[in-house]
Formats: sequence, C-alpha cells, structure tokens
Amino acid sequence: MIWLYFGIFLAACFAAGSTGGLFPPGKWYDALQKPSWTPPNWLFPVAWTLLYLCMAGAGARVAVSPDNGLAMALWSLQIALNGLWTPVFFGLRRMKLGLIVLSALWAAVAATMVALWQVDWIAGALFVPYLCWVSVAGALNFSVLRLNPDAKPAREEA
Amino acid sequence: MIWLYFGIFLAACFAAGSTGGLFPPGKWYDALQKPSWTPPNWLFPVAWTLLYLCMAGAGARVAVSPDNGLAMALWSLQIALNGLWTPVFFGLRRMKLGLIVLSALWAAVAATMVALWQVDWIAGALFVPYLCWVSVAGALNFSVLRLNPDAKPAREEA
Repeated sequence: MIWLYFGIFLAACFAAGSTGGLFPPGKWYDALQKPSWTPPNWLFPVAWTLLYLCMAGAGARVAVSPDNGLAMALWSLQIALNGLWTPVFFGLRRMKLGLIVLSALWAAVAATMVALWQVDWIAGALFVPYLCWVSVAGALNFSVLRLNPDAKPAREEA
Repeated sequence: MIWLYFGIFLAACFAAGSTGGLFPPGKWYDALQKPSWTPPNWLFPVAWTLLYLCMAGAGARVAVSPDNGLAMALWSLQIALNGLWTPVFFGLRRMKLGLIVLSALWAAVAATMVALWQVDWIAGALFVPYLCWVSVAGALNFSVLRLNPDAKPAREEA
C-alpha cells in the first residue's frame, strides 16, 4: 500500500513540476542580470527530481500513519503552491508576484515539515532538503527582482 | 481541528484556482467558436467557489478519519492537476494538451471521489458536483478544440 501512495504523491509532484517544462526559462531569463551564486540551469530539473522523490516518500510514510490529518492537509497546500510559481514567474514574468508565491510556498513547506515530523521523524527529515532549495529559490527570485528593476511582465497577445 | 483542516484545504483550492485570475480567458477565448451550451463566463468563478467549499469540506472530513491514506494521496493529486489546466489552456493556448490534462484531472477526481466515499460517504458525495463540472469542462475543451482547428498556441515573446 505504501508504494501505491508513493506513486500517487509522486504523480502529484510531477503534475506540479510539469510547469517547469511547459514554461521554460528561455531567452528572457537568460538575458536577466543574475547573482554570482545562481545555480546552473541544468541543476534545477535534477534537484527537483530528487526533491520529488523525497516529498513523495514523506507523503506516503505519513499517509499510512495514524493522526496524519494536519500533515496531509498541508502536503496538499504545498503542492498546489509549488505548481503556481513557474507559470507566474516564467509564464507571466511577474517577478514580484513570484516572490509572494515563493514566500507562501516557503511557509507551507516549513509548516508541512513540522507537521510531518510530529507523525514520523523520517518524513519530516525528507522535507529538509526541499525547504533548503525553496530558500535558495526565494533568494534567487529576490536577487533577480532587485537586479532587474526595469524587466517588464509578459504582454498579452491580441 | 476539522475547521483548521478545512481552511488549509480551502487555501490549497484557492492556490490552484488563482490561475483563473492570472490567466484570464480574454480576447483570444472570446474569439473562438464555442458550442451553444457553453456556460457564460461569469458562471465559472461562481461554480468554482462553490466546488472549492465542497472539496475542502470533503478533505477535512476525511483528514480527521482513520484509514484515510489513499483518499489523502488522491486529494493531493487532483489539486495539483487542477491548477495545471488553466496555464496550459489560457496561458499557452494549447487546447490538445489542455484536453489531456483535463482527462487526467477527470480520472483523478473520480478516483478521489471513490476513495473518499470508502472513508466517509458525505465526503464522497461532496465530490460529485466537482466530477460533473469537470465533465462539462472536458466536453467544452473537446468541442472548442474541434470547432477551432486552426487556432494557434501562444508564441514565445523575444
């Protein structure tokens, strides 16, 4: 049963993550000023794939545990916010709104980590790399916003 | 506790649903050929708001119940797919891919409904209007795709 749950949570992760392929960085992002510590583009899909495996593992472990209500509700919230950032940042090119979404995601991931930990410490620990990565992504979003004050959001096509 | 869970699930619904405000239908959608039974634009946010209340209620009822693992995993999957359709259809204007996402969403909603029902029949029943609405949305996506064979996806801006 835990493997079925793992597969379902992993499918949820890849549904949210498919926005990364649908709204790729492209020329607009390449042309932006970025801080010196910006991770290379190839690292993002690699990191996310590893994080998805950890997130699905954490979800499955807690799904088979008693008293999992809070952790399960928060797991749903964080995956809904996770899939929102890429369309906002790379689709609409709205960097300020992207930072707001990332801040909400960070808070949801931190809350989920604590709630998971209360049910099963391994599940909570599996969310630590995710929280670290979202922290880096938030710092990157903030830096890119500050370094490119004149970047325009995407215009609507006629 | 159930009200806290309700609030968290509702926040997940509105995170997914915020894509509706971020990628509005606009001129492109207005200009498409649509079937005679197309619901008016104002009905979509009204219907979704009512559906979100039902979805959050179903999630919260099952979150406080034992043996909820499958239903909770599937609830996460359906909300991740829910937030994906609008950026694909209205953001990228890829109607075929939109139909694939909607088909996956329909299957996930149907599976979630069954899994919820096995834990708590009221929670399962709260997903029935959602499944009906996604069926209508799927039929609409299919019809619009068929009626507008020459519609182009959005081009990437330079």
